[in-house]
Order: sequence, then C-alpha cells, then structure tokens
Amino acid sequence: MTQLSPDFLSAAKSLLGPKGWSTEAEDLEKVVSPWRGTYKGETPFLARPATTVETAELVKLCNQHGVAITPQGGNTGLVDAGTPHGEICISMQRMNAVRSLDAFNNSMVIEAGAPLVTAQQAAEDAKRLFPLSLGSEGTATIGGLISTNAGGVAVLRYGMMRDLILGLEVVLPTGEIWNGLSGLRKNNTGYDLKQLFAGAEGTLGIITAATLKLFPQVQRASAWVTCASTDDIVKLLALVRDHAGDTVTSFEIIPANAVAMVQADVPDTRDPLPSDLPWRVLMEVSMSREDHARDVLEGALASAYESNLVADAVIAESVAQADSFWHIRETIPLSKRAYGTALNQDISVPISRIPDFIKACNQAVLEQVPTAEFVIFGHVGDGNLHYSVCEPGNAAQPVLRGQDAAVFRIIYDQVMSFDGSISAEHGVGRLKRDELERIRPKAATETMRAIKRALDPANIMNPGRVINT
Amino acid sequence: MTQLSPDFLSAAKSLLGPKGWSTEAEDLEKVVSPWRGTYKGETPFLARPATTVETAELVKLCNQHGVAITPQGGNTGLVDAGTPHGEICISMQRMNAVRSLDAFNNSMVIEAGAPLVTAQQAAEDAKRLFPLSLGSEGTATIGGLISTNAGGVAVLRYGMMRDLILGLEVVLPTGEIWNGLSGLRKNNTGYDLKQLFAGAEGTLGIITAATLKLFPQVQRASAWVTCASTDDIVKLLALVRDHAGDTVTSFEIIPANAVAMVQADVPDTRDPLPSDLPWRVLMEVSMSREDHARDVLEGALASAYESNLVADAVIAESVAQADSFWHIRETIPLSKRAYGTALNQDISVPISRIPDFIKACNQAVLEQVPTAEFVIFGHVGDGNLHYSVCEPGNAAQPVLRGQDAAVFRIIYDQVMSFDGSISAEHGVGRLKRDELERIRPKAATETMRAIKRALDPANIMNPGRVINT
Repeated sequence: MTQLSPDFLSAAKSLLGPKGWSTEAEDLEKVVSPWRGTYKGETPFLARPATTVETAELVKLCNQHGVAITPQGGNTGLVDAGTPHGEICISMQRMNAVRSLDAFNNSMVIEAGAPLVTAQQAAEDAKRLFPLSLGSEGTATIGGLISTNAGGVAVLRYGMMRDLILGLEVVLPTGEIWNGLSGLRKNNTGYDLKQLFAGAEGTLGIITAATLKLFPQVQRASAWVTCASTDDIVKLLALVRDHAGDTVTSFEIIPANAVAMVQADVPDTRDPLPSDLPWRVLMEVSMSREDHARDVLEGALASAYESNLVADAVIAESVAQADSFWHIRETIPLSKRAYGTALNQDISVPISRIPDFIKACNQAVLEQVPTAEFVIFGHVGDGNLHYSVCEPGNAAQPVLRGQDAAVFRIIYDQVMSFDGSISAEHGVGRLKRDELERIRPKAATETMRAIKRALDPANIMNPGRVINT
Repeated sequence: MTQLSPDFLSAAKSLLGPKGWSTEAEDLEKVVSPWRGTYKGETPFLARPATTVETAELVKLCNQHGVAITPQGGNTGLVDAGTPHGEICISMQRMNAVRSLDAFNNSMVIEAGAPLVTAQQAAEDAKRLFPLSLGSEGTATIGGLISTNAGGVAVLRYGMMRDLILGLEVVLPTGEIWNGLSGLRKNNTGYDLKQLFAGAEGTLGIITAATLKLFPQVQRASAWVTCASTDDIVKLLALVRDHAGDTVTSFEIIPANAVAMVQADVPDTRDPLPSDLPWRVLMEVSMSREDHARDVLEGALASAYESNLVADAVIAESVAQADSFWHIRETIPLSKRAYGTALNQDISVPISRIPDFIKACNQAVLEQVPTAEFVIFGHVGDGNLHYSVCEPGNAAQPVLRGQDAAVFRIIYDQVMSFDGSISAEHGVGRLKRDELERIRPKAATETMRAIKRALDPANIMNPGRVINT
C-alpha cells in the first residue's frame, strides 16, 4: 500500500476540509468492499471532495507527490475497476447535485456522484425521460455509469450510457479542469474527447459532471411469450421490429429453468405462461400513445403466431402486470445464486449468431463439465447474453467449484470464434485486463496504451485498470 | 510542395500497380479542387489503393520516407480537411464494396470509398434503413462522412454519423491495420477507439471500412406550417415531441425570404402556404405504420393550432407532396447563391436559446452591416442553424463583399456567448482550425494535441487539420 507522506496528508486534509476526508477504518472498509464481494481492496486515504475545484486541486497535489488515485462512484461495478488497491480513493458521492435542467433543449447538467435515480426523477419532474435503467440504479452514480459505459434494459432503443451524454466536465490527470459541458447535439470542433473519457474507467481523468440527453416520455406495451428455440427468437426479433420499427425498447430472453429458479426462491411468483418449451421472451414496445403501442404489439404477435415463431403470448393488461413480468427478469441473478453454484459471464455476439453460439458454447462446456446446467438470459436485442454455468447447491457430487478458469477460457474462446466480446456491458477493470490483452488486436491495445501514456504520463490515474501500463 | 524521392515514387508505383496511382495533371486537378471551390490545393501524387493492405503498405512507405498524406473521400467537405496542400493524396474511391450485410444483426460492412447512396440502397434491398441523408449523398463517401462526423436531416431521430457506426477498420499512422469491424452493439473492452477516429478528419489514421447500424424501415408523415416567431417554433418542437415522442425525424426551420428566393430562382415552385408570417417549419414524423404517424401528426398540429403556435398547416397527402416540401428546403443553398452575395456559417446553440441568439446575432451584424439581410434555416431540432448574411446581387451600393472576416468574428462571438459551437456539422479542417484554437478551452486543445502526437509522432497523417501540431 502507498505510504503517504505527512506533507501530502496535511495538504490534502487542509484542502478538503473536515468533511472532505477520512482515514477511519470503518469508512475505508466501505470503499474497498465492492457490492458483489468476490474481491477486496485496500486504501490509506478516502477523499470526498465537494466541488470540481477541490477535486482538481487534490489531483494536482497527487501529481506533486506521486500518489496514485482510484476514483469511485457507487462501488457497484463488477470488474474491479473502482475499488482501490493501495491507491487513495476519491469518492464522488458528495458531488450529487442536479446543476440545471433545460426542458426545451432536452438536457440536464448533473454531478458525477448523483445516483441514477436522481437523474431519472429529475427528468420525470420535467415531464421528460432519462432512459437508462438497470438493477443498481439506486446506488450506481452518473460518473461511474459513464466511466464504465453502462448498459441495462433499454439499450436496444436508446443506446448505452455513452450515447446518452451531450457533454462532460473532467479533471484531467494533470489536475486541469476540462469544461466540456456542452448541451449541443451537433458540435464538430475537434476530437470527441467525451467519448474517450466515457468507458475509460477513470484511467484518463475523473468525470465530475455530465450533460445528459433527455427524451420524450413514452407509454409501454409489454408482452411475455413462449418460444421453442433461439432460432425462432432471432426471427421473432426481426418480425417484431418489422411491425414496431425502432419503438421496440426491450427484448429479453429468459430460459424456462430460470423461471423455475425464481419460483423456487420467491414462492409467490406466478409463471405468466406455464409451458414445457425452453424459452420465454419479455418484450416491450414504447410509443407516445399507449393505444398505438398496443396496436403494434398485437399486430406483431398475431403475425408471429401465424408464422409459428411463438407458441403462446400474453400482453400485460396493466402496469402492475408488466411489472410482474419484469420482476421475474430482474430476480434471476439472485435466485440463480440461491439455486447453487454459478460461474457467470457477460458476453455479446452478433444477434444473428446467438443460436449457433449457444449450441457450440454449451457443448464445449459440457465436454469439460458433463453435469453442467446453463442459465442464459439477457438482452437479445443487443446480442448481449448473461451466460451462466450452474450446478445445484444440493448436487450429490459437486464438481463446478474451482473450475472457473477452465470454464471461462472455454467460454472466451467460443465467444471470440463467433466474433463476440468477452465484456459486453460490465467493462474491463483489473478482472478482464490480462485476458483482453491476450484477445484484443495488438494494434488496438498499443493505441490505447499510447493514449494513456500521453494523457497520464505519471500513471497516477487508476493505474492498472483497462490496460497494463 | 513535397519533393518526392525517386525511391519513394518507384516503390509506391510498384506497390499500387498501374491502376493505383496517377501523376497526370488532369487527375491531380480533380483532387485538389473541392466541390464548393472557395479554396484550392496542390499535390504531387495521387494514390488509389484497391485494398486495405495496399493502403497500409503505402502508409508504411510514407513513414519510411517522411511523406505526408491527405486521405480523401468524395471531396465534398466544406472546411478544407480533405484537400491536399502539398501532401500526397490517398483517394479511397476504388475501395467501394459492400463487403457483407447481416439483416438479423441489422448491420452492414462497407468500404470507405463507397458513396452514401450505396449504403442507403444496400439497406433498402435488405428491407432495412440506413438513415443518414444529406445533399451530397451521391458523392460523399462513407469514410469521409465518418471522418467528418456528418449530420444531415435525420439527426434529431438517428444521431450523427458517429452514432451510426458499430465498428471501423483503420490504417494507423504507423501503417498497422486495426481491424475493429465489430458488429456488436455492446462491447466494453477498452477505450472506444472508433469514436476517436470518427470526426478526426484523417489526422489519426485512414478509415478503410466501417460496420454501419441498420434500422427498421419507417413510413413518413410530413407537414408544412407557418409560424409567427422562433419563440413559437421552439415551443412547437416541444409540443410535437410531447405528441410524437422521438418519432419526430426532422424539424426544419425555413424563413419566408428563403421561400421567395427559391421561387425566384426556380419559377414553377409552389409555396405550400402563402403567408405574410416570417417563418415556416417542415416537420416529419416517421413510424412503422403510416396511419399512426399521420394520426400523431394531426393530433400534434390540432393542439398547436389551439395553442396559437401555428397559424396554418398542411399535411402532405402523398409522397410527391412531401417531396415537394423537401425540394424547397434542399434548394435554399443554391437559390441563395443565385440571389446575391451570402456569407455562410454552420453553427449550433442550445435549442432553448435559438430565439435570443437570432435576435442578438442579427442585431450585432446589423451594427456592422446596416443593410444586411438574413437567411436562417436548418435543423432546429438539433439546435443547428445555417446562418447566412446576404445582400441582393443587384444592390445599388454593394457593401457585403470583403467583410467576411469582420462578419464571421461577430457571429462567432455571438455563438460563443450563447454556449454554442462555430462548427455544428461541417468540421474544422484548415478553415476553422485557428479560430477554434482561440475559442476552445486550452485543456481540450492540449489533450487533442497530446493524442495526435502519441498516435502520429512523425506528423504525416493529414497534418495541420483540426489542430496545429
């Protein structure tokens, strides 16, 4: 762990003020213990700046003293990007204000430490929509979501987090402040720096605020359908988009065994359409008028039924019923954990190749682990699958534990052979850094390294995440 | 002009083959004479590589011999980015194939030299939509459109060109090839390099191919309305989006005097709604079902009429009628030139500030040129105005010619005071480089310069465009 000099400590404390720092064991413990808890970090010092200027002054100080920094948002990441491992931790959580909202420009300036719900709520108060939505939205912060380019359940319609920003304010590794909080939709005045900081996991600077895009509010129509195969599901997506255009907001695949796991774990869960078929799809169309959305969804499902792409379908009659569909979808990760052991990967492949990928990957895993079970769910509309290899907790002869490395290698190789990505929405961090240096084209890694070295020559900004430096 | 050594020339010619190069005056003349003709370049050598590998080998050769390169697409740019000024010219026009199209993945791999119409047509053949659309679509190439991050008339709905790419293949300044032709919608495996090359105007590498996003086809409903003020127009946009959500594809402002200029220039043009009011709006809603689109547009216009935001409105009864609305819009630039002298700027401001910007900027220009007339049209939905200061060709005492620098400085200062951008969609090139170095935050320019130096240490890739190096 970094030894901090008394000079650095006294300067940092005086700069941040009494509320702006901590070395209490309890406070440090929180920021080094991430949400999922499969790894743990350490840090000598927690900074909680209240302003962009304080953040910038602290970074300058770190430069002078050669102190490395890990910026942190809600600490909900899954790839060990935002947990310090010896670095000082700069938590952005005190910077959580909505600075301004311009309803006519459909934009909002919000600070990095605000949780996603704050942005969603501020948009709603202005009769607008901020469409990013994901499980950890009460805790995950705007800065963290941008730094990891978060995904979620509405990417098919609205894109990833990087598609939802108009501008950024960033403290650069030198401690300079770049005010790029543009509210402009068109601004071709040089390299698009905001897209470089987005997804850089804090390795190129600290995002302190962002200008977010807002959208018109929409009405949803949701359906739950049963399907015989992933071939049918890929065709179904195309058919639904033929009918609904790009108003298809979500198109989530759910396997029958995941519904059973949720029912076992949460006893009062009702399966909307009990069936022996292996797959369900939860789809949502959203439009300005609810009658149009329902009209389009009904037309699509009638046509899908005629084409034998769905066996059975139910359209939610109320918001409560739609929420009950989503509740099953959102409960899968926890119920899967309750079921037993699960080795989880977040991958993507071209949508058209999903069926062949699943067949090939399952078969390859079964050669290594003949008793493996599979829970494969996620965002088919984005080609993004949460792929889990499972074993019941009460297995007579458990074999899965300890096989992580072997199983992951098999999955990675299969993903790559289908032109996919081994990190669809979770990012790189420390967890997938080395694997990605093995997989990624050398020209890409070298270009990334050149950029990192050019912008952070002292290598103090979240070192060792994304790429080796 | 660069003196090319005999060694370089013989190696380049042998590498490119007889069809792959020219030093004929006639061929060189074409590539140094851009479409609009307000500036002119020079070049000693035109390369026309047929493959990515040939392009890469040529770049390596240029590195060895210290030869600077200007990559070129359709040469339709407006900011002097793609015209060589002494550099050799690498024209991408022989690389114009659609390499593949995956309708289920909604993606297409296409080479950089293909004109935009090729992409539009290939999408249509597969019953999909490639939504980018602009005046020069028959000539402008995919590589050039990505390198300049082109805009056009459907940005409100579909975004700029950078929003329409899933992956890129790029020859780096070192001559290495980066194959980043991913067809994935989610791929968080490091810095998003494609977004760095997009909009870099060829200063960081040569784009040789791209994976484009395709969309479902849609049906249009178009309306032409008359309005009393830009205040009303900004409110009208919000009202229409309340009714139509993000299915509003276009929302174009047209001043009455521009309609008159088009009518004078193209005598059989019919004004859809003759009126003494100063403004028209051409708006378009597009949805999967035409009846829904019309329904929504009618509802929006009825409500706008009740709120006194529009005076009169006509919804196109046919595709031909809609096209006749668009014809007026698309003819403005040429008719404006026929009318007389015009000093043109492509700027953007936050949508909410458009009315105040127009008032303030017109007033400031009138202080310099009391007889100035204004033609202000463009993409209000994106905050992007084409702002022209005009004078009739038959003016008794012409005063506008020669005042470019003074008028542009006034416009730039006004744009900046409204948090706008002096290059909304046309880019930087050589034309706006120095002005932008004056205006842009120093931290941004220095970051761009650090990136340029890191990726192109020999400074051979389109030097002097975007930033000074």
